[in-house]
Order: sequence, then structure tokens, then C-alpha cells
Amino acid sequence: MRIQDPAIRIGRVTKDRPVVAELESEVTKNLQAILNHVDQNTDEALERLFELLKIPSISTDPEYSGHCRDAAETCRKFLAEIGFEAQVCASQGQPMVLAHWRSEETDNKPRLLFYGHYDVQPADPLDLWQTPPFEPYIRDDPKNGQVIVARGASDDKGQLMTFLEACRSWKQVTGTLPANITVLLEGEEESGSPSLGPFLESYKEQLQADIALVCDTGQWDTKTPAVTTMLRGMAFTEFVIKGPSRDLHSGMYGGPAMNPIRGLARVLSSFHDENGRVSVEGFYDGIVDPTSDQLSQWQDLNFDASAFLSDVGLHHPAGESSYSVLEQLWSRPTLEVNGLIGGYTGPGSKTVIPSIASAKITCRLVPGQDPAHILEAIKAHVNAHVPADCTAEFIKAEGSPAVQFDTNSEAILSAAAALEDEFGTKPVMMGCGGSIPIVESFQQELGLNALLVGFGLEDDQIHSPNEKYNLSSFNSGRRAWVRILSKLTE
Amino acid sequence: MRIQDPAIRIGRVTKDRPVVAELESEVTKNLQAILNHVDQNTDEALERLFELLKIPSISTDPEYSGHCRDAAETCRKFLAEIGFEAQVCASQGQPMVLAHWRSEETDNKPRLLFYGHYDVQPADPLDLWQTPPFEPYIRDDPKNGQVIVARGASDDKGQLMTFLEACRSWKQVTGTLPANITVLLEGEEESGSPSLGPFLESYKEQLQADIALVCDTGQWDTKTPAVTTMLRGMAFTEFVIKGPSRDLHSGMYGGPAMNPIRGLARVLSSFHDENGRVSVEGFYDGIVDPTSDQLSQWQDLNFDASAFLSDVGLHHPAGESSYSVLEQLWSRPTLEVNGLIGGYTGPGSKTVIPSIASAKITCRLVPGQDPAHILEAIKAHVNAHVPADCTAEFIKAEGSPAVQFDTNSEAILSAAAALEDEFGTKPVMMGCGGSIPIVESFQQELGLNALLVGFGLEDDQIHSPNEKYNLSSFNSGRRAWVRILSKLTE
Repeated sequence: MRIQDPAIRIGRVTKDRPVVAELESEVTKNLQAILNHVDQNTDEALERLFELLKIPSISTDPEYSGHCRDAAETCRKFLAEIGFEAQVCASQGQPMVLAHWRSEETDNKPRLLFYGHYDVQPADPLDLWQTPPFEPYIRDDPKNGQVIVARGASDDKGQLMTFLEACRSWKQVTGTLPANITVLLEGEEESGSPSLGPFLESYKEQLQADIALVCDTGQWDTKTPAVTTMLRGMAFTEFVIKGPSRDLHSGMYGGPAMNPIRGLARVLSSFHDENGRVSVEGFYDGIVDPTSDQLSQWQDLNFDASAFLSDVGLHHPAGESSYSVLEQLWSRPTLEVNGLIGGYTGPGSKTVIPSIASAKITCRLVPGQDPAHILEAIKAHVNAHVPADCTAEFIKAEGSPAVQFDTNSEAILSAAAALEDEFGTKPVMMGCGGSIPIVESFQQELGLNALLVGFGLEDDQIHSPNEKYNLSSFNSGRRAWVRILSKLTE
Repeated sequence: MRIQDPAIRIGRVTKDRPVVAELESEVTKNLQAILNHVDQNTDEALERLFELLKIPSISTDPEYSGHCRDAAETCRKFLAEIGFEAQVCASQGQPMVLAHWRSEETDNKPRLLFYGHYDVQPADPLDLWQTPPFEPYIRDDPKNGQVIVARGASDDKGQLMTFLEACRSWKQVTGTLPANITVLLEGEEESGSPSLGPFLESYKEQLQADIALVCDTGQWDTKTPAVTTMLRGMAFTEFVIKGPSRDLHSGMYGGPAMNPIRGLARVLSSFHDENGRVSVEGFYDGIVDPTSDQLSQWQDLNFDASAFLSDVGLHHPAGESSYSVLEQLWSRPTLEVNGLIGGYTGPGSKTVIPSIASAKITCRLVPGQDPAHILEAIKAHVNAHVPADCTAEFIKAEGSPAVQFDTNSEAILSAAAALEDEFGTKPVMMGCGGSIPIVESFQQELGLNALLVGFGLEDDQIHSPNEKYNLSSFNSGRRAWVRILSKLTE
């Protein structure tokens, strides 16, 4: 997405829906009771979360489809228990969970659409997990106190359950919910959400809302909450470099025969220059730089780049050397090879010149970059860099643009106030290096802006072995959603 | 190995063992009878070969150790049936088959040591095999007539069985064998023969001989036999490029975090320059170029480089552009990446920055190159080319030098005459791009020169799916060994 037209920014969405004064006091007086209920029901909430975490709902691998359906059904059950009218809806891929709470009493409140995903990343490399990835448990961590350990503990099962549990407590204490709420949980977020667009199109009517709540982001640090106002976009492609028509014996053919691994290495090494800049022609076309305001806000964060890198064993920022590490993360695009394979990779050696070698690539995009243009540029670059006797075949190419919100919109200001009430600290308006394609889809398909609030932490190891979610994130998260619901419906 | 001292070349080995005249006529008169026996027993010989081909004796993968033992036992059984005193001997790795034929009658003949290997390359990629790799069968091939299809059909089970079957026919027709013969079959040729050196050292006495016969090479073409007089050597290494201390989420870390795949690509792409020359400093040190005589012999072969390459879908020689394709194959060294892997390689995408990426490398060496020096040079090159925040860890490094024989030695001249008798065409004295480490080991450990004769063909697809051995190779091979045994013991 390009930088949005200010006219459709979040601030406008709720502007014509004046707060109804007589309901305000009722909501306010219930707030403390609901927060108490949250605190008193942590064990039950964890039990439900663990039930969900035990299901290996890996969407990218077709072998796990049955588990994805199980996870969807479990979420549906939770929503029905709360009082939602909840379905598991078929899609072109993994099913969607769609649930509605409707009440005449709250017809005049902003309509909320909560989004989360029940699918998780593959768990490999399995041997690096200290315990099996789908056997959740709580362990004491020297840095984080008690943490919930499992694949999906943070991304996104733990996060989505903070919202569901907030609704559950609200409903149990008050007998109702403070707004008309639709919950949409998809099962393909970790594999590019291919079925989401068509689903949003088909269910457009049922998904009408005033604001989307998306809980797939993080806090600034353990003590400081955050609202994410910039998200990098994503472009994904995968290609195969083809050389000889069959695998060859390196003794009989080695020398005259082009090895496609040599071709692949040449292509991959041509993607970056010595200063970490992406060398693909046109890659930086159209980029809208952050405003000087944003940059000075980021500077004030005193981000400790050395600590950020040394936490993961690194010491030299590898991105564009003319940008700060925070800019490299939040406002500069990247091109990464996420995987590559070719030839013999088993134990020992095999003197083979393979017929093919392949690589998977993702780019993180920033405002102003067009995914289709980027994918074309990469294709042209690869084709220009394969050596003689190699060809490149592209298997897949898809993408979604970056997103940027107005930090002065009413929804963001309401959420910020609620988060400050909960944490006692002003939230950071931050960028996010990751992509949440749904945010773009909500804008394109439903004309809907999103409020991005979440309780993940940098060291949650999402997408890595030993993923965790702090118990404090789970607790503050549930409480914070209660407060946000309250502020948004004041 | 450096170019050998002419004093120890093959020609000298048998020089002090004069032919014993009274035995000559007996051998000669039996020759036609033995050749007839070979022709009349093809079905039985094929049955034995198929029994061996059905055993998946893949030495490089520890899971197949049991099958390697089975293959060794089957070979031992065949040798015992012929009349050899045959054992399966334990080694540090896969067992060795060691068999002796001793007779007082032939104590004055050159002592022969036949070498072959019962192990085979891994069969992957399995999905490219038209039939299961360990279910041998004979099919009609438009180009080659009847061909035997299976992993190992050519390399080396089919080849070694040509010699065993020649001995079997000789023994059945004459009741004896024409010389004292030791047969040594190893089970780790395809994984670098790690146990062979120590075994040769321990069994030195039993392995004493005047000439080694090695049947792991090929004909020049279907009609033209060959004696291989130059073999490239080999250096093998494997290394891991390490980046961050764990797998990272490309959204949360992409940009500042060094991706080890980027490091690997940079290293691999630095191995060759634009002219196909290996850029590793010191790689070409000490190379002894072929003599002008050799080069002019090779030129006379009118090797069809275009056809050689286009057979496997290639059109541009990828080796050093200043050398002919035959020189690139026979007398120039190579550096090939045989396999690489890193990050996520399953179905779909995973937005990961992996912690490691690795590659397996083999070099084909030519006379004058020292494997240890080459391996050190590669290590230094890799370390010099890894980017900041990447390190290289070497897993393995081993090698054997190239070998070159005197084409005017008595053994080579005898074999050449026998091959001409069988094929009606003078054999080509050829180089070989591959390595046969045993040849070097025989020289180092036993002071023994080798006669390299084999019946493989360029299109046998050894090390590739759908490996085959022409039935005509199996037939002429068995007959040719009978003739060679006859000539060597005249």
C-alpha cells in the first residue's frame, strides 16, 4: 500500500459515532470488576490456551491440515462458550473461524472486528527445542519470570487468547459485551494468507465494522506497551536454477559442465553490495521516507542496537550502512534468502554436479514500494545474473505492500490511553519490521483501518525453536484488552 | 601424488619376471574354449550380477551398513564358488572382501591383485528413477541395445563382475587360473575409502603382487576400448557458515542481522572468476602440464565437445576458457560445490533468517597438485571471504593426489594388445576426470602400479538416476578380461 490518503485514516472512522453518555458510567463502574475477574481466572485461561497450543496447526505443510481444522474447531468452541454465534467456515485453504456478538444495546457503539490466526510456523529445526514444541508448559526464566513455552505461545495463539479471554471475563461479569464484535481467526497467516482475500470478498457483509483490532504485534519492552503504526510489507518468491539435464558425475563432467550451484551462488551474492544495499535495479523505487518527526521520535527511544544484535550473537549491522539499525528494521526494505538447497545434502560426500539448485526469498517492503514491481525487478535481476547454461524458473511470486497509520487518530489515542492506564507508562508509537498481510487486506477489501496492539516481546523467539510468551504478557494483555474495549466504547 | 619417478612405473614391475615358454602354448590353446564358455554362460552370469545389484549397499549412509555387509558376503560367496580362498575381513568401516587363488604351477607368473568395490552411490533423487534403483532389469535402449538398469549396474558391481566371471569361466574350462590372483573388494569407495589405508597396511603381506588390475574406468566409446593412464585426484571438504546464534524472524531482525546464506553465497561465488578459473590463491601451484605428445594424441581423438555437452543439455564449456574441453576434463583441476543447504527448504515459505548454512565441496586434482595444500588454500579462501558476523567451521577435509602412468609400460602394452584382439580397434590411452583413490593407495602402501581397464560408457549415468551398464559392456568386458589374463601371463 502507498501512504494512505489522510481522509481515510483511522481518526475518521469513529468520528461520526458520538459517545452515548448514559452508557459511559455503566461501563466505567464495571471495569474494575472485570479486571478482577481476569486476575482471578488465570488458571482457567491458561488451560484453554494450552488446549490450543497442543494442536500442531502448521499451515504451510499440507500434512498438518487435519490439525489446522482441529485448531479452528477449538477456537470456535471457545467463542461459542463466551456467547458468540461462531462458525468454522470453509475457505479455499484452511478454514476460517467467524464469530459474531450482536446486541441492540450496543448498536450505537463502534463495531469492532478482531483478527488473529490459529496457525503456526513449522517447528523445525526440532532438535533445537528443549522440550517438544506442542507440549506447552510454564517454566521459570531468569530474565522474564514465568514463561509459556510452545510453538505458537506468542505467535499468535497466546496473543489471540488475550482478546478472547478479555471478552470472556467481560461477558461473565456484565452478562454482555460492550460493542458489536466480530472475531475472524484465519489459519494461513504463516503461509501468506492465500485464501483470505477471496474470503473477505465473499463475507464482506458479515465483516462490516468500524475498526479492526489486530493482536499480532509487540510491546516496546517488558515495561513499555506499544501501538504499532507502521508495518513492513512482504514479497515472496522461489526459484530454481537449472543446469544440466540430469545429475552428473563430477569426475566425468567436472570442468566443462556448468554447476547450477555456481549459478545460484552468483545470483544470490549479487543481491547485496558491500554496504548492505540491495543491488536489484528499481528495488528502492518510490520509497516514502519517514517524516523528520517520526525519525526524531525513534531517536528518542535510545534503542540499544548493540544489545539487540549481541542478544543473537551478532555485532555488525548488516543492513544499509547509511541508516540506523532501527531504520533498517522499521523503514528500510530488505531482501533475504530464507532457504536454499541443491545437490547432495545427506551424510558424507557425493561427487555430483546436480541438475538443479533452488532458493526461497522474501523481501520486507516499506511504504511506497509496490510488491508487483519488486517481484518483477527480482525476476529481471535473477535472469540477468544467471550464467550461460543456467536458466531460472520462478515457482511462486506474491506480495503485500507496507502499511502506515496516522498516530493522531482517535482509535490510536484511545488505545494509547488504555495502555498507559494498564502499564503506567506511555506506549511507544512504533514501526514493525514484520508484515501482517491482513491489515492491507482489511483496507483493500473492507475499507477498514486497523488498530495494532499486542504483547509479544523481542525475545519471544517466534518462528524459532523454544518460542515463549511471558506469563506477564498473557496477564497484562488480557487486562489491557478490557481497558481498550472500555476506552473504545466510552 | 607428484608425477611418478619413471623408475617405478608399471613397465618395470614385470620386467624381471621372464615369460615361461612351456606354459604359453597351453594357455593359448585354451583361450577360445574359455571365450566360448563366457558366451554360453551369460544368463547365469547375469543372475549372479542381479543378486548383487539387488542389495542397496550405500556406504555413505550409516543406515545401509547391514546391506553393505550383505553385499560383501555375496561377493565372498561368488569368489569361493570359483575356488578362491575368500574371507569377509573387518575393517575400521565397511568390511573388505579378500580372496586368494594360489597355485604352485603359476608361482612364476606375475602376481595379480584385482581391485573393485561392492558399495554404491546413494540413489537419490529417487523420484527421477524410472524403476526402483535396486530392482535390476534389462531393457531395450534405442542407442545402446540391451542395457542392465540399477544403481551400481556400471559403478562398480557390473564392472567387477566382468572380472569375477572371466575367472569363473577360466577355472571351469581349465580347472585352474593362469596366475596367482588376489581379489580385494572394498565397501567404501563411494565415501572416500577411509578404511582402505589402514587395511592395506595391516594386510600388506597378503596383498603382495606385481600389478594391480582396477576395473572402475571406461571405454572411449561403444566400439573403442581404452586404457586409462591419467586419473585426476580428489580433495573433499565440507563447511558450515554460522551467523546468528539462533534462527531469527526475518521481520523482527531482517536488515541489521547478517544472514549466513548471504555469507555462503558470497564465499561460493568467489570460487570462480568469469573465465571459469578457480580464484583460490595457490590452487594451480605445481601443476605439471601434459606433454606435447599427450596433447597431440588427445587432439587426434577429435573429441566432439559439443555433442558431449549437449547430451546433458549444456552448450557452453564452463571450465577455464583457455583450455580445450578434453583438457578441462583430463588435465585441469576443478572445484565443485556438490551440495548446499540452509534455512527452510520444505513446502511453502518461512520468513526465517537461519542460523547456519553449509556446503560440500570436492576438487578434482591433476598431477603436481598436493591435496593438503589445496585444502589449506580453500580454508584460507573461505575464511578470507566470509563477511563480518559470519564464521566458517570446517567439518572434514581429506584428499588424494592425481596419478599418471607411463603408456609404454609392458602391462599397458599387453592389455592394449588384448583389448585390440577383442574389439578389433586399438584402445585409446586416455585420461580420466574422476579419481580412484585406491590407485594412489596401492602405490603408497604396496609400491604397486595399476592397470586401469574398464568397460563403462559415458552415458552410463553413474551417480545419477537410471544408472545402466550395456549388456555389450558386460559381455565384451568378461571376454576382454580373459584375453588380458592370457596376455599378462603369456
